[in-house]
Amino acid sequence: MKPGYGERMKAQATLGELAVLVGGKVEGDGSLPIRGIASLEEAGEGEITFVAEIKHSRRLEKTRASAAIVPANLPSFPKPLIRTLNPYLAYAKVQAFFQQKPFSPRGVDSRAFIGGGVKIGREVSIYPFVHVGKGSEIGDRAVLYPGVYLGESVRVGEGSVLYPNVVVMDCCVVGKRVILHPGTVIGSDGFGFARDGAKFVKIPQVGIVVIEDDVEIGANCAVDRAAMGKTWIKRGVKTDNLIQIGHNVTVGEDTVIVAQVGIAGSTEIGNRVALGGQVGVVGHIKIGDGAMIGAQAGVGQDVAPGQILSGSPAFPHREWLRAQAAFQKLPEMKRILADLEKRMKQIEEAISKKDES
Amino acid sequence: MKPGYGERMKAQATLGELAVLVGGKVEGDGSLPIRGIASLEEAGEGEITFVAEIKHSRRLEKTRASAAIVPANLPSFPKPLIRTLNPYLAYAKVQAFFQQKPFSPRGVDSRAFIGGGVKIGREVSIYPFVHVGKGSEIGDRAVLYPGVYLGESVRVGEGSVLYPNVVVMDCCVVGKRVILHPGTVIGSDGFGFARDGAKFVKIPQVGIVVIEDDVEIGANCAVDRAAMGKTWIKRGVKTDNLIQIGHNVTVGEDTVIVAQVGIAGSTEIGNRVALGGQVGVVGHIKIGDGAMIGAQAGVGQDVAPGQILSGSPAFPHREWLRAQAAFQKLPEMKRILADLEKRMKQIEEAISKKDES
Amino acid sequence: MKPGYGERMKAQATLGELAVLVGGKVEGDGSLPIRGIASLEEAGEGEITFVAEIKHSRRLEKTRASAAIVPANLPSFPKPLIRTLNPYLAYAKVQAFFQQKPFSPRGVDSRAFIGGGVKIGREVSIYPFVHVGKGSEIGDRAVLYPGVYLGESVRVGEGSVLYPNVVVMDCCVVGKRVILHPGTVIGSDGFGFARDGAKFVKIPQVGIVVIEDDVEIGANCAVDRAAMGKTWIKRGVKTDNLIQIGHNVTVGEDTVIVAQVGIAGSTEIGNRVALGGQVGVVGHIKIGDGAMIGAQAGVGQDVAPGQILSGSPAFPHREWLRAQAAFQKLPEMKRILADLEKRMKQIEEAISKKDES
Repeated sequence: MKPGYGERMKAQATLGELAVLVGGKVEGDGSLPIRGIASLEEAGEGEITFVAEIKHSRRLEKTRASAAIVPANLPSFPKPLIRTLNPYLAYAKVQAFFQQKPFSPRGVDSRAFIGGGVKIGREVSIYPFVHVGKGSEIGDRAVLYPGVYLGESVRVGEGSVLYPNVVVMDCCVVGKRVILHPGTVIGSDGFGFARDGAKFVKIPQVGIVVIEDDVEIGANCAVDRAAMGKTWIKRGVKTDNLIQIGHNVTVGEDTVIVAQVGIAGSTEIGNRVALGGQVGVVGHIKIGDGAMIGAQAGVGQDVAPGQILSGSPAFPHREWLRAQAAFQKLPEMKRILADLEKRMKQIEEAISKKDES
Repeated sequence: MKPGYGERMKAQATLGELAVLVGGKVEGDGSLPIRGIASLEEAGEGEITFVAEIKHSRRLEKTRASAAIVPANLPSFPKPLIRTLNPYLAYAKVQAFFQQKPFSPRGVDSRAFIGGGVKIGREVSIYPFVHVGKGSEIGDRAVLYPGVYLGESVRVGEGSVLYPNVVVMDCCVVGKRVILHPGTVIGSDGFGFARDGAKFVKIPQVGIVVIEDDVEIGANCAVDRAAMGKTWIKRGVKTDNLIQIGHNVTVGEDTVIVAQVGIAGSTEIGNRVALGGQVGVVGHIKIGDGAMIGAQAGVGQDVAPGQILSGSPAFPHREWLRAQAAFQKLPEMKRILADLEKRMKQIEEAISKKDES
Repeated sequence: MKPGYGERMKAQATLGELAVLVGGKVEGDGSLPIRGIASLEEAGEGEITFVAEIKHSRRLEKTRASAAIVPANLPSFPKPLIRTLNPYLAYAKVQAFFQQKPFSPRGVDSRAFIGGGVKIGREVSIYPFVHVGKGSEIGDRAVLYPGVYLGESVRVGEGSVLYPNVVVMDCCVVGKRVILHPGTVIGSDGFGFARDGAKFVKIPQVGIVVIEDDVEIGANCAVDRAAMGKTWIKRGVKTDNLIQIGHNVTVGEDTVIVAQVGIAGSTEIGNRVALGGQVGVVGHIKIGDGAMIGAQAGVGQDVAPGQILSGSPAFPHREWLRAQAAFQKLPEMKRILADLEKRMKQIEEAISKKDES
């Protein structure tokens, strides 16, 4: 048995139907029945496979799959094909098709705690050991796995999935079709203290977190509530695991944040930005739309739209590549420099002697 | 409706009363009633706002607030004012005043698990799905949110708040007025193994964690128990989210630790130290009182009191700034060096020819 | 009272018995009764202590312990001794002996949720508020602490311990004698999206995580399930807290991963590798057996077996040490370079003048 997420629909489709699903073009027998998708190595009889890029097309030769999703411009190949401009996207869509599960909402388990004045939509699944604080609202078809905690006056939109042990603190707003992976905390207090001599006095964090539609946040992340106003994760943002987002940060639409990134307070990240793994971003700056920041970089000042930066502190990626290459030659450079200095002295002495003579 | 943490007291005060609260001086009508505090942009009629630094005082002109907390030396301004040396601290105090909630302990929920021999103080709040292991002690007015796990013989002091899904393992001690944000783990095993050929044998971690009074630890952090003895977080320490503190570490009073910092085993951090975001500190070293370590730095050896370091490995911040500036010029330096080498050779040849001639 | 993990056995042994346990050689009275092990400073009458390395042997002089575990080649010392080639390993074994607890399985608490078709072995401990999804299997003597979530069709092997709030998602496999520290998430979705214009489409993550026997994973970690196939943590791997392992990663046997490391998707880590704290490893590369990567390094390409690397991007550790030393001298190098350039020009002018004259 191949492992998979629980009970699936055992969906089946013809090659032609899958081609329609992904907006591709069939080559060969469109009536061919297909019962699943798998990698080039693992696909077997009755399954379809895919090649994302033309440079991997030679690996097609050995596959035992009955059909393949391929780049539109692949040379002819003796198997039924679906040609498409974006095979990777087609793979995502076909995989999603075969992974469909029967929709069977569990309702509200009697071992969940539901506070006063809570509004719950239709066809929800609220598992045992879930806590929904008073005045919260849960949209239709939302799923709250065991150990989920919603504080008071939290809103969770239609079709959102909160995996086990997710915490959403008071008054925070989670949009529609949002996915929060296990252990993630939304709306913990921002890190704000005022000095009072040597000691620190806590600044009450009275703002909220707003997570818009179609956001996905990884496991064991932390998104702090605003000091005042809101921390704002806009539509379509996707984050990996263990990321930290400080109070009053804004993250723009369709921005991608890789694992272990930290963003300090009040920073504004634009739309379609990409932050590589373990990047750190200081507070109170702006990163423009479409910027890309390389893994482990440290961003200390505003970044213009479309810039590509690396390093800590970060500067333009191409310059950084050259500086890094030179860095590895530093000991040699130091030796040459010392040598030149010595030779320079000898020449100067030689010249000065000649001048004297 | 403006969002805020649950039901508040709807506290109200006169400008004069707030001035007394913050130790400031009223300018204008001290009997003016104030019902809340908000930012310069968001404050309205009946609310007070604040300007933390004199350089932002021009932004006062547009506020619709009825009064303002300002630096003591602000030039005169046509609104009722509270003048103070530390407006940010005054803001913290006034915000806390307005955020006061009615104190309404929930008692011990019947869906919590309370082990044998547990001592519970007065006016506590123990929510559903909390586990309190046998022999533990919970101080007066402590709050344990859903999903909190206390092992055996844990002590939690008066007025401490453990947010949802916080874990405190056996025998650890949490002081008074401590705040542990959601998902944080106190007292997980330290990372200790002895080599036995190619394999590793676990070293039992039999020490504890002691967290003193007035400590605040962020969300999804991990503080390991000691191998023997204690991991020790002293009074007033404040940490951000996702930090890691290894076994037998000591963190001194009023030290501040920003998000995603990692401190390896047996290191001693002094009092009033500041560690920037994503800093790493190796084990078995000492960081002196008042030292400041810049974001993403890697500290590999002892740091004297008051030092300011950056870089990985870390060295004095000012020198690091200069080295970083030069680093970005490295490719140019390399080019100049190669050019000098060539010219040097030409000169040497020219001289040697002349000598021959 | 010294703190320790709950109720212990109050085990006692003679010095000779302990020597047999650790494979060492007694010097002095082998019948001496020993009731515990403690550090050089804290050990007292009736306890044994240990010195891991000969350079610390002078600290033996002050200990009040009744006996000591020492390196085999320690010069003679006037106390009963156990001599051994690996005193640290002997300490681990003796500590484990004294920390033995009476084995008392709790059975399955009535407040746990056990889904349909679950198979549960003998002598397990399943605490309140645990969720075991349908079709899962729990081996003999396994311990599931409060707040543990197992999805559907999860397998947990004999003797494994899942600490509070650990999450293991659908179909993942946890071997025998595995320890998962609190808050750790196994089997969250891998970070996989296909671009569809400006937006991202989720790629279903249909693989699993396999954790082999004798693995220990720290607190608040995240190990993602594979896109297809498996994310694979092999026998004997030990990880610290807050680490991130991406989808389809393989980690080889007896590899050690220090806190806050991140490993991106599809990378293969060999056997007996050591990754220092906060290391980042890009996706789709191989790190050979026995390689060692220094703290905070960024590994961007394949690493040959046995290599020792540091830096971001990482290169051989010895060269990195020299480059780092030079880096700190960069401002001086820059000054010398400018000076040489000036002098070079003067010489060239002097020579050209002479040539003219």
